[in-house]
Amino acid sequence: MPDELLSAFWSYEAALTANDLAALDHWFSDAPDTLRAEGDIVLTGHEAISGFRRTRTGGAPPRTVERVHEVRLAPDLAVLTAETLRADGSRGLQTQVWQRGGDGWRIRAAHVSATRPPAAEHGPSGAASVWRVTGEPLVAGAQNGPLTGVRVAVKDLFAVAGHRTGAGNPAWLAEAPVAQEHADAVRLLLDAGSEVTGIAHTDELAFSLAGTNSHYGTPANPAAPGRIPGGSSSGPASAVAHGWADLGLATDTAGSIRVPASYCGLYGWRPTHAAVPAGGLLALAPAFDTAGLLARDPGVLRTAARALLPRTDPEPVHRLVVDDRLTTLAEPEVQASFTAACRALALRTGLPVGRVTATDDLDDWLAAFRTVQAAQAWREHGTWIDKHPGALAPEIETRFAAGRDVPPDGLAAAEATLAEARARLDATVPAGTALLLPASSSPAPFVDAPQAEVEAVRAATLRLTCLSSLAGLPAVVLPRLRVRGLPVGLCLVGARGTDEALLDLAVV
Amino acid sequence: MPDELLSAFWSYEAALTANDLAALDHWFSDAPDTLRAEGDIVLTGHEAISGFRRTRTGGAPPRTVERVHEVRLAPDLAVLTAETLRADGSRGLQTQVWQRGGDGWRIRAAHVSATRPPAAEHGPSGAASVWRVTGEPLVAGAQNGPLTGVRVAVKDLFAVAGHRTGAGNPAWLAEAPVAQEHADAVRLLLDAGSEVTGIAHTDELAFSLAGTNSHYGTPANPAAPGRIPGGSSSGPASAVAHGWADLGLATDTAGSIRVPASYCGLYGWRPTHAAVPAGGLLALAPAFDTAGLLARDPGVLRTAARALLPRTDPEPVHRLVVDDRLTTLAEPEVQASFTAACRALALRTGLPVGRVTATDDLDDWLAAFRTVQAAQAWREHGTWIDKHPGALAPEIETRFAAGRDVPPDGLAAAEATLAEARARLDATVPAGTALLLPASSSPAPFVDAPQAEVEAVRAATLRLTCLSSLAGLPAVVLPRLRVRGLPVGLCLVGARGTDEALLDLAVV
Repeated sequence: MPDELLSAFWSYEAALTANDLAALDHWFSDAPDTLRAEGDIVLTGHEAISGFRRTRTGGAPPRTVERVHEVRLAPDLAVLTAETLRADGSRGLQTQVWQRGGDGWRIRAAHVSATRPPAAEHGPSGAASVWRVTGEPLVAGAQNGPLTGVRVAVKDLFAVAGHRTGAGNPAWLAEAPVAQEHADAVRLLLDAGSEVTGIAHTDELAFSLAGTNSHYGTPANPAAPGRIPGGSSSGPASAVAHGWADLGLATDTAGSIRVPASYCGLYGWRPTHAAVPAGGLLALAPAFDTAGLLARDPGVLRTAARALLPRTDPEPVHRLVVDDRLTTLAEPEVQASFTAACRALALRTGLPVGRVTATDDLDDWLAAFRTVQAAQAWREHGTWIDKHPGALAPEIETRFAAGRDVPPDGLAAAEATLAEARARLDATVPAGTALLLPASSSPAPFVDAPQAEVEAVRAATLRLTCLSSLAGLPAVVLPRLRVRGLPVGLCLVGARGTDEALLDLAVV
Repeated sequence: MPDELLSAFWSYEAALTANDLAALDHWFSDAPDTLRAEGDIVLTGHEAISGFRRTRTGGAPPRTVERVHEVRLAPDLAVLTAETLRADGSRGLQTQVWQRGGDGWRIRAAHVSATRPPAAEHGPSGAASVWRVTGEPLVAGAQNGPLTGVRVAVKDLFAVAGHRTGAGNPAWLAEAPVAQEHADAVRLLLDAGSEVTGIAHTDELAFSLAGTNSHYGTPANPAAPGRIPGGSSSGPASAVAHGWADLGLATDTAGSIRVPASYCGLYGWRPTHAAVPAGGLLALAPAFDTAGLLARDPGVLRTAARALLPRTDPEPVHRLVVDDRLTTLAEPEVQASFTAACRALALRTGLPVGRVTATDDLDDWLAAFRTVQAAQAWREHGTWIDKHPGALAPEIETRFAAGRDVPPDGLAAAEATLAEARARLDATVPAGTALLLPASSSPAPFVDAPQAEVEAVRAATLRLTCLSSLAGLPAVVLPRLRVRGLPVGLCLVGARGTDEALLDLAVV
């Protein structure tokens, strides 16, 4: 084993899951002062600890190890603090002090604690800023299918037959035609048995990562009260995080699925570019637009993704990699939680974690991406914007305006930079490899944060999200980081077309 | 300092109490991987931990450090796990991993957790096995005094004017005269302003440590549900533990205050023999009988003891000692909790803990004590017992019967042994010294434990309690040990007449 200590830690975890008393006895040091503390009970000595386990019928409650922190004190001494999650939503902490002696690593002291399960959400408070239209259901799905019973919140950029597409702006909504057909992705989900519960708000024309909307209000973020939900898929993210829907059908151009997943503690999937059909989807920047999903439950995400993707036979991921220079773009506390989450993912998957340098030119790449995105966005919506002065919030209008005057050679140069970037990333992240990085640079900012702070957070987060966007690579977000009690996503970026392999890592 | 690590630990605790942010920053290692975990939040790095403290208005909630466990990993590495108690009754655990570097001991990792406050007790369930007579109040006290508002449960061995003394036996009660005067101790407590809430049951004729009574039932032990309350002061202990009274006026011959205090998690005081007047008290073995107190609150105990004692000007305790051979008479888990509680008491009082050998002849001393106790008990009650065959439970009658046939030379030899023991103990525990030992050998046994187990526990506990009894030394019990969530008392034995100094340690 590359790391004997983590291997011992993982064997202990397996023994705990199996309630293998002999193995648990083995891993606790056979010393008279070995200590185990939990609740209001301190057990001293191997015999007392062993006796306690024998009286605990059924063993420890099942749990997922989400993060493993390591404090190395000496070559033969280390502290491992694991953060765990139980099925009832309660979170646990397990601190173990490991010491290596002649017979290998053993636990000399342990402290275990748990939070209470979170209180259930009640009532549709703030629902008006989440939904534009709802029904029970709004659109029924096929009678039988793998998604039967799954309630979908559709972002207000997808055509839903019989409804207008609102795009987060009342002026746009007023002029929009009633759709005759469902968007491709809506139809695929309905065919798989799910139902559309409602059409959920988006940031205006999807050109934001904040999740605010000056016309309809800011959907609440139940995972981080008082904070923005992230956007632009703010409505679907809020609906799913509240439990009002099980699945969000959303879009991601520059991070609009990954950021709300990160801020709201959800699973999110941005597909390989063009892997999911975009028919009936209101475009922002077609070279980067994707139709993807948000979910609370990784199994629901996995099943729904199968309904949207052509059948493939994925090569499994066999290697995890990180780029320290990308990781350090996030806040220090996000970095620490990220490192602990990577350690846990490596243990859960049994995969090694390597190091890569994904880019030497991130600033150039990001600038090129923004240039092409803005130019495409203006091409899509410039005419409408010119006809509706003042219809958009100022910060949104400013972003569109940046695309109005991109000179042809500037656009060509930006596209050339992106072509180089794609080639470089394809080489760095070949099939079977997943690049791990924080899904956002921080937890969600406060709703009332100054606009300058929101812009700064957007800029920092774009540096993390732009890689997948500019290269069209699939990305899956797992709700695996926690910073001061707030969620942050762990993002996995894979090779083009390997969505299924990446999604399989969400259900490990 | 004799122990630099514990000194550092205690400085940290003082900084926490004072919310001295600079000092708290000082004690946490200034390293990027220093870790602090609590609830569902893990902070990594000195900066994040320091920042957390600055946002916590008012600092940590006040708490008492009851026990400090130490796991020494290496000369420069140790784990300290502290068990704490808050005013609301919730209990906390704090595990710290300390490492010594060039600048001394620092915390490298910490894990903090707390239980919820215990649910409030409701209703007088089982009150019939606790009280023989109650009133609101049964007897009012003086208008103003230091004990005004304090409700007293009087053990059914003390004369209460207008009532019979029942002694835990219906046949005894039926023949008992109505008292014309209060017992001395009852009068002193009433004079100090307290009121008598009721007369509470005792084990039959006080000749038991179990707290069971075959006639009136077993008073419940709210601190250890399903377990015996300990005796013979079972009724007062149960009443005080339930919160139905604030003070128990009780007796201790061989442990009848110390054992129920230990089992019920109460403060208890067995006075120096004859320091509290015994007028109006039904005797068991007058050479050893004492009238003392039980309380939930150490301040109430301290004030009430002052009402019972002649005014003295105590020399404070300046030295704590333990006798490892006595400690090891307790169960292993009691020993571990005892060691941790002594460490905390030494820190709280600032007193050193020395080691002594209190006895080389414990078996002889105990045998002599039991001989004299039984002989005196038979002398007191043999005539009544002979006239009332079958009135006592068999195990109680057997104990009395053992005193019937003690030959005069056997009694004289036993008394000589006790005189030697007293001299030895007086030398070992001079004024200013407190001998620390577990108040009972185990937590309370289950109510339905087999009689053989109850007898075995009684025998083991008597080996711990007999020292104070046979020498007439004062003993104070603090509820400071916890074994598997059950209380066990920490007993302090002092020199003859130094009750006040010993009691002062209860309120440190």
